[in-house]
Amino acid sequence: MKATNDIYKQSFSFPSGTVQCLFDISFDEQFPSPTVIITDENVFAFHQNKFSNTKTIVIPAGEEAKTQATVDYIINQLIDLEISKEDTLLGVGGGVVSDLAGYAAAIYKRGMKLQLMPTTLLGMIDAGLGGKNGVNVGRYKNMVGTIYQPEKIWFCYDFLSTLPVHEWRSGMAEMIKHACIADEQMFDMLEKIQLEDIMGDFKKLNELVQRNVKIKMNIVEQDELDKSDRHLLNFGHTFGHAIEKLLGITHGSAISIGMVCACRVSEKLIGLHSSATQRVLNLLEHYLLPLEANTNSEELFELLVKDKKRVGDDIHFVLLPQIGQAKTEIIPLSYLHQNIKEILR
Amino acid sequence: MKATNDIYKQSFSFPSGTVQCLFDISFDEQFPSPTVIITDENVFAFHQNKFSNTKTIVIPAGEEAKTQATVDYIINQLIDLEISKEDTLLGVGGGVVSDLAGYAAAIYKRGMKLQLMPTTLLGMIDAGLGGKNGVNVGRYKNMVGTIYQPEKIWFCYDFLSTLPVHEWRSGMAEMIKHACIADEQMFDMLEKIQLEDIMGDFKKLNELVQRNVKIKMNIVEQDELDKSDRHLLNFGHTFGHAIEKLLGITHGSAISIGMVCACRVSEKLIGLHSSATQRVLNLLEHYLLPLEANTNSEELFELLVKDKKRVGDDIHFVLLPQIGQAKTEIIPLSYLHQNIKEILR
Repeated sequence: MKATNDIYKQSFSFPSGTVQCLFDISFDEQFPSPTVIITDENVFAFHQNKFSNTKTIVIPAGEEAKTQATVDYIINQLIDLEISKEDTLLGVGGGVVSDLAGYAAAIYKRGMKLQLMPTTLLGMIDAGLGGKNGVNVGRYKNMVGTIYQPEKIWFCYDFLSTLPVHEWRSGMAEMIKHACIADEQMFDMLEKIQLEDIMGDFKKLNELVQRNVKIKMNIVEQDELDKSDRHLLNFGHTFGHAIEKLLGITHGSAISIGMVCACRVSEKLIGLHSSATQRVLNLLEHYLLPLEANTNSEELFELLVKDKKRVGDDIHFVLLPQIGQAKTEIIPLSYLHQNIKEILR
Repeated sequence: MKATNDIYKQSFSFPSGTVQCLFDISFDEQFPSPTVIITDENVFAFHQNKFSNTKTIVIPAGEEAKTQATVDYIINQLIDLEISKEDTLLGVGGGVVSDLAGYAAAIYKRGMKLQLMPTTLLGMIDAGLGGKNGVNVGRYKNMVGTIYQPEKIWFCYDFLSTLPVHEWRSGMAEMIKHACIADEQMFDMLEKIQLEDIMGDFKKLNELVQRNVKIKMNIVEQDELDKSDRHLLNFGHTFGHAIEKLLGITHGSAISIGMVCACRVSEKLIGLHSSATQRVLNLLEHYLLPLEANTNSEELFELLVKDKKRVGDDIHFVLLPQIGQAKTEIIPLSYLHQNIKEILR
């Protein structure tokens, strides 16, 4: 049993205010009491008792719920519940919940108070951090949204006890991404441990989550509006997003393959050492993440052309000069087209 | 004929960037060329030739268009036109167009470049300034939206040559509001001239528009997120909004009556001199604005209770200690209830 003052906090600053991260909070004793909660039907089914004293809006689970129709539903619920802009909305769930809760809070009465409680490893180290929110429009992902920071992010590891192993792997893909772009020491560390070590040891998990939160939030602090440094977080995501769309595999799996592609491009274009690429491949494999996809390279290229980071005939692409460092370069789409078979191998 | 460098500019600063106001631009020679324009069917019908070289999204005219359905339409058009977030969207129209264009720009790809060109006096001195945008949800006004500043605001007085006289009066109501809360000298000036002097003299108009832009933008610079000083701009709007809703009269007429009510409350609560109230009444009458409404005071009070600025049993209310100065006080709703007949008189 822990006292409330045991909570370890980290604060990050933005022009719009401060985001406070509260780590390793106790499910039973430190669960917050906001005015209204948004969660999905899966989280609600598992943890109904946590929400019994708070007005709760339950949305369907899964990416299909990330639409304007769900936002309309949430807004109407907030109106019916007579929620004011001074009230606090807490989003409890994975990336879909934080995207929808964040977006609804950003637009309701032109912005109400927001807090988030990610319930997946991916949410804790990536999706729930940085303020990006939004919904899909038809087949276009995150076509509409804002960047709106929560006042607090609660990290409650108890939720992870029911997290499926493929969800753990999705989180590990983004953790390896952070290691690749900004933290060689963590890369070394991840080589020496196993997924089971993290899943079974909340102290180790807490250490890693805090480290990853710091990496991502420090980058976002430098470039909240995603005009320069924040692009580095897209390492592996150019090919990754296209593969995810084409094959319908999990985000983590797609990003894993995308990082392999980005390492190969880095070898060719800025001389990343082939042994470094091999280390990245080995680390991804170590966490049972896929290294290649059986895709039609022409169809894949068609999707690359539609990437948000495309500018005319070129594309902003994140490259690794070495493990623990990243840079963005503008490369011609024609280069990717000519070499796509070798990049995908 | 003017050279482009004749344009008089004023800049205002926000955490998110700078807003540049460009005054008295020439309809024929200095009309901007953005990537895409949003306008309403009325403005489009009158000025079609201005838009012939630019992708233009035309929306229905009037407050009924201020809905999520229109936003969905705009977003789908932006997607179909393959607009990127680096492209510039220009909203040309009155308050409804600036609210919709601003909102669509704020959420499309998490924020694209925005410029505004207000075509009404009200738009030029109030609705088009300060970044507030949004749509109505059912009978709730501006229930959803953001605060998102345009990069540029173009002031092109040629549009006003077709503005109906009741629209001029609506603009004058907000101009008198600015005089009441922040500019006694302008109050004196408005007492000495006639609406016809302003309508017939673009030099006088330009002087007044610039003065009003400065008053509003300086207040918004101090408090973009509407947590303190920006509340002062609500002078006359507590009763005004309720009267507008109840009687369906124009915003300007409702705010005129609302300012009369607010002067009477100011007399009672903070000792505004009765001669000052009389000067405000005279000035409103001078611009043919109404001073009283034939309303059911109980129905009106029911609407006051639903005001956004209500906090429990109290309401944030803007009072005048004297002409040219304003302050916000928290007053009990019961006080308004007990005195409502005398306030409405």
